[in-house]
This record gives sequence, structure tokens and C-alpha cells, in this order.
Amino acid sequence: MSIEHGPDAGQNTVEDHATTTRDVYTTMPITVRTRRSPFFERSHACGASGYIVYNHVLLATDFASPEEDYLHLKRAVQLWDVGCQRQIELSGPDAARLVQLSTPRDIATMQDDQCFYVPTVDAAGHMTNDPVTLRVGPDRYWVSIADGDLILYYRGLAAGLGLDVQIGEADVWPLAIQGPRADELVGRVWGEAATRIRFFRHTRVDVDGVPMILARSGYSAQGGYELYFEGQDGADALWDRLMTAGADLDVRGGSPCQAERIEAGLLSWLSDMTPDMTPFEAGLGRFCHLDRDTGCLALDALRAQREPTRQIRPIGISGGPLARMMGFWTVTDTNGTTVGRISSAAHAWSYGDNLAIGLIDRSHWETGTPLLVQAPDGEREAEVMPGFPGRG
Amino acid sequence: MSIEHGPDAGQNTVEDHATTTRDVYTTMPITVRTRRSPFFERSHACGASGYIVYNHVLLATDFASPEEDYLHLKRAVQLWDVGCQRQIELSGPDAARLVQLSTPRDIATMQDDQCFYVPTVDAAGHMTNDPVTLRVGPDRYWVSIADGDLILYYRGLAAGLGLDVQIGEADVWPLAIQGPRADELVGRVWGEAATRIRFFRHTRVDVDGVPMILARSGYSAQGGYELYFEGQDGADALWDRLMTAGADLDVRGGSPCQAERIEAGLLSWLSDMTPDMTPFEAGLGRFCHLDRDTGCLALDALRAQREPTRQIRPIGISGGPLARMMGFWTVTDTNGTTVGRISSAAHAWSYGDNLAIGLIDRSHWETGTPLLVQAPDGEREAEVMPGFPGRG
Repeated sequence: MSIEHGPDAGQNTVEDHATTTRDVYTTMPITVRTRRSPFFERSHACGASGYIVYNHVLLATDFASPEEDYLHLKRAVQLWDVGCQRQIELSGPDAARLVQLSTPRDIATMQDDQCFYVPTVDAAGHMTNDPVTLRVGPDRYWVSIADGDLILYYRGLAAGLGLDVQIGEADVWPLAIQGPRADELVGRVWGEAATRIRFFRHTRVDVDGVPMILARSGYSAQGGYELYFEGQDGADALWDRLMTAGADLDVRGGSPCQAERIEAGLLSWLSDMTPDMTPFEAGLGRFCHLDRDTGCLALDALRAQREPTRQIRPIGISGGPLARMMGFWTVTDTNGTTVGRISSAAHAWSYGDNLAIGLIDRSHWETGTPLLVQAPDGEREAEVMPGFPGRG
Repeated sequence: MSIEHGPDAGQNTVEDHATTTRDVYTTMPITVRTRRSPFFERSHACGASGYIVYNHVLLATDFASPEEDYLHLKRAVQLWDVGCQRQIELSGPDAARLVQLSTPRDIATMQDDQCFYVPTVDAAGHMTNDPVTLRVGPDRYWVSIADGDLILYYRGLAAGLGLDVQIGEADVWPLAIQGPRADELVGRVWGEAATRIRFFRHTRVDVDGVPMILARSGYSAQGGYELYFEGQDGADALWDRLMTAGADLDVRGGSPCQAERIEAGLLSWLSDMTPDMTPFEAGLGRFCHLDRDTGCLALDALRAQREPTRQIRPIGISGGPLARMMGFWTVTDTNGTTVGRISSAAHAWSYGDNLAIGLIDRSHWETGTPLLVQAPDGEREAEVMPGFPGRG
């Protein structure tokens, strides 16, 4: 009667879509409950035509077209309003301990100018989110979350253990500057020194007199930055300044690109990764430091789950254009036995191929294994690929 | 730089809307991340024209028109796909303790056939959700949540305290049967005995051979039931059976009605109630049992906050039809000093008036106090009302 973890329930299977669901898009009223970042108006004016709600904030999904948005990201530079990456601020004597209790990644060596990708887990080793965490000072962290109220986990755990830590949502709204010309644009606006930040390091830059954090990071493999914009005022002016400075670089408004992030193997929380999965199943074993006593609450639980029976794999799917995904697609072997699911798929124009992210059983996860994918318009031949071709 | 609690940030003020936001509706792609309940297809076929995402599940918002949906709800009976009210199942020896740690309401007397409205709070006494909790057996609870991952709070707290409890999302999808003719419809389908359930009690009814929980409850003041449908199969057949049985009762598909729930004073989580509020500020003091040692973690914190400086009030707003709300509206006194916010407002046709829910400072919360509301189309005269006129 009950399932241990949620997201699978209600994610309709392919049969539903092919026969009954009529629309890939629906109409959504904007309400008091729908938050918008300070960059919303400027981003919207760049031609955003669709939105999802992410952390109770609007996130644009479509601008020119999927292909044009993709090709442009790979040749120029885009500004993304990713204010929906909300920041949980943890501060105080036990802040580091709270971060460490909730992730298998060892954060002991983290410096004040570093960002760490820290898959978060509950006590059983199941994933709760996959944030990037910034150390922004002694005893002070910003946990930049994927879609979900991870703040409630921190509050519950801190209360249960009686930790001395302040937990709140910071009034900070990331603006991503992504694409091969991002360095050029950032250099023009904040000087050449800013472009010398190393990957997943951050520095302070001046935004109309206020020092704000600029990190070399982002949800693409095209290079770029994320500016952690503080407060509500001055967002329009900053956006305009970047657009003006980058006019000859063909800077445009954009948003995370499904095809590009799939070819780069960048996973999406609540589709590729679900709360029933361990970091090992998600292929994130390199972030699990289980050989030392880090203090992670799930240390023993994860030690017992080092060898998963299913794992994320890059999947190539044959044939023409794919339908837009509205639910998981079942993956079978060539005899029709279910061996996994596709959670993300798109045409990757650079590779002339359909690329996908699959969660595949151990029996069928070797490179080259032939598979079948039950797409809404029929069965497709597919294969386990040697790697994500766009991984940087 | 940081605010202690989130929702206010990003909820634009009226100035933004009046001058810059063009559309009250936007386009939303349905994705793998957008869950649908087993009733989605049947509900959609009844003419749902708009959706929001609630607990990562689609929730319909519009059918015929706001006025017609409202008038029909008050004279007939509607089926609502409220599968978005996800059920957190807590079971095991410490299940009751976990529920009690997280709410100021004393649950010690709760019987196996009872539903309790249990505002939930963190250790500081701030609200984390406002679920209805069902006791569905010894050491077994379903927490039927408003929009938010309360499951993560339970997981964190249980881990911190080392509780012996199973925490998961149940494969259960509520279907609301609301309106004055709901008794007649339920009697026809499940027999007259089912209609003798008392308010906020539940019983088992037969759904194609499976006993499922039927409760007298729901997010309207028109009377009715919520059926806790289990699993994915048979939802279409049940929906059809109810529609056929109620054809001469004018049964229709519908969804929670903004105007009706406002006039009834039914609050909405993340608009009327936000995570920076205590239950006292939300006017929920009657659910705070602070005179006994219930075990609620926030007992001392709430004892110190019994006398709030702002509180929810029913507000009447003068003038013609109101714009749809896309953010809080500022409330001022007659001199223009801010004294609160409107979080929900609608025309209540039964009363020929605009009714609203406001969070008003103590200095201006007395009945009859004249106020001004900064609506997108200009300032409106308003007044604190003696009560919510539609409260049942």
C-alpha cells in the first residue's frame, strides 16, 4: 500500500501519454505562491515562452527554439535567471558539522573561496538533493539547492541533535553567465582578474558598489560563471550592463539547456536522480568519501551500498526526433524484459544523435549493450554508450 | 544580506505587477518532473484549463469560470483531483512521537478513525506546513500535506533523535467530493451508512473490492468528503461511477475554489501562511495546546509567542472586480503607513463583496478599522471584518 519513496508514483508511463495526454504544454496562472527572481522581468523580456516552477520560483524553459537555444549556447554567451537555485544559509559554530552530517563528501578541506558539489543524503544513504555548497566565510555556507525543501531536513536534524547553527534562506539570486564567450564578457565587466578564478572557486566582484560572489560554475559544459546576486535592487541595471557589454558577443537571455546538459551528463534532480536512489546509483561515487570518518550520518549505510544493482548510463537512441518527455520511458532488453528507465532525452545536434540518461540494471549496463526504449511513438533501438560525449 | 525565512523574497510587490508584468497566465511544459495523479486524465477531460504545480503534482485551477465554478460548488457537488495532497506515512513505535514533536496540537487523544488538522512547526515555533493528519491504525499516520517537502523535516528530526519510525510517501491520492449534494452522491455509491461519518472522522468504503479510507473533510465549507484512493489502478472507473451516479445532481469536475475558501477563512500555505509565521499569527491558537507537556519541540518557544503583534484578519475590500493576485498587496492605514499585507482576495458573489485574507499589525486589527489596500489598479478602501462570512 505504501511505497518507500515518492517520485515514481504519479509519473505516468509511456502508455498513458501515447493514448490519452493531449498537450505537452499547459497553462499556469501566476499566483502569490509563484515567486520571481529580481531578474525575472529582464529575462522574460528576452523572449522566454515557457516556465516551470522550481523551488517555488519561476524558471524559464524556452526562448527561440530548442535547437537555436542549444547552438547559441555552444557558440556565444547567455544570461540565465537561475534565481530558483535558492540559497540555504547555514552559519554558526555547528554549520560545518551540519553540512557534513548530510553529505558523504568530505568537506574538511573546503576553503573560504571554494564551491563543492555535495550530493546530500538522509541517514539511510538515499539522496535528498544535489546542491553546490559554497563556503563563504568561517562557519558560513550557502547551500545552492536543486528543487526541494532541503532547508526542512537541516532544521529537523539540527533540532534533533541540538546543534548551534542558524538556518535561513538567503536573499541571494544566482545569475548564470554561460557559454564559450563568458570569459570575454566577464573580463569586460569585472576586469581580467575575475576571469582567472579557477573552476569551482569564487571571488568577490563589485556590483554597483556592493561586493558579490562570482563563481566559475554552472549547469552547462560550455564554461562560465554564476553570480550570486544579493538583494532585490539593481538587478535590471546589472542585466542591462551585461547585455550592453556583450552586444558584439551575441549575448542573449537563456536558461539551462536540456540537450546540452544531457550530452554533458549533468543530471537533473527529481528526474535523473530520485529520492529512492543512492549517490552510487547516480554515478556519484567519486563524491562519497567512505574511507574516513567524515561524520556523515549515512557512512555505514553507504558503505553497505557501494555496489549498486542499477546505475546511471549514457544511452544513445536511434531514429528521428524524439517526443518531448512527460514521464519516464521504459527500457527493455531485446526480449522485452524491463531493465531500466530513461529519465531525460533530447536530440544532440552536435552529435547528430539522440542522447539520453538512463537508470539501467547491472545486467545490461555494459557499454554496447543493445536495448529497446518504449518511446511514446513506438519502440526505438538504443545502446549503452561509452560516455557522455559532451562531458567537459 | 540574509533573511531568516524565505517566501517573502521574490514575491513581487504591487508596483512590479502594475507596471511591468504583462501576463497573469504563462505556459508550462509538462515534464518528467511534473507528476500527475491517477485522476488526472478524467479531471482534465472535465475541462480544466489551468494548472499549478503543488507538491510536484499538477493541480487544476480553472474549469468553467471563477464565478460559475464558485456558484456550482455552493449548489451541487464537485469531484476534485487533489492527489497533490501527498501522504507522508509514518509508522512504527515512534510514529506518534514524531507527529507530536512537530505540532503544538495535542494528539494523545486521537482515535484510529480520526483526522486532525495539525499545523506543524519547527523548534522555534515557526510553521513548516499545515497538514491534516489521519490516524489510520495503531502507530500509523498519514500526514496529508500542503505544498512542501515536510517529509525532509521528519527524516532529519528522526535521524537526529534516533527514532524508531518508518517514513515514506504513500501511494495514496485524495479525491475530494465537495458541495451540498455530496452526501446524496456518497450515499448512492457507498450506502447511507457512509454518510453518517462525523466531521473529521473516517471510515473504510469498498472501491472495486479494495477497502479505502473515506473521511468527512475537505478544503471548502460546503460539506463533503475526501476519499484516500490507493494505488494507480481503477481511478478512471471510480471517477466514472461517481459521475454517473451523480448525473442528476449536476456533479462536475472542479478544484479548490479561491473565492469560496477565502470567504470561509480557509488559509493557504505559502500565501496566507508563510514559514516566518507562528500558528498564533495565523490565527491557529486553538490548535496550540501549551498548557500540557505534549512533547512538542516548540512548546517553550510558542509559550513565549502567545501574543502576536500581527495576525490573520478577514478584510473587506471596496470597489469593483479585483485583479488576479500575483503577489502580496500592501495594506496601509489611512495615512499611508504600511500595516500589513493581503495574501488572498476574490470577489465573493454570495456576499456581493470583495473578501480578502490579510496579515495585519496589532495596531490596526480591530474590527471596523479602516484600511487602504494597494491593488494593482490603484488604492482601494478596505476594512477589518468581524469574521469570515462563509465559515461553516
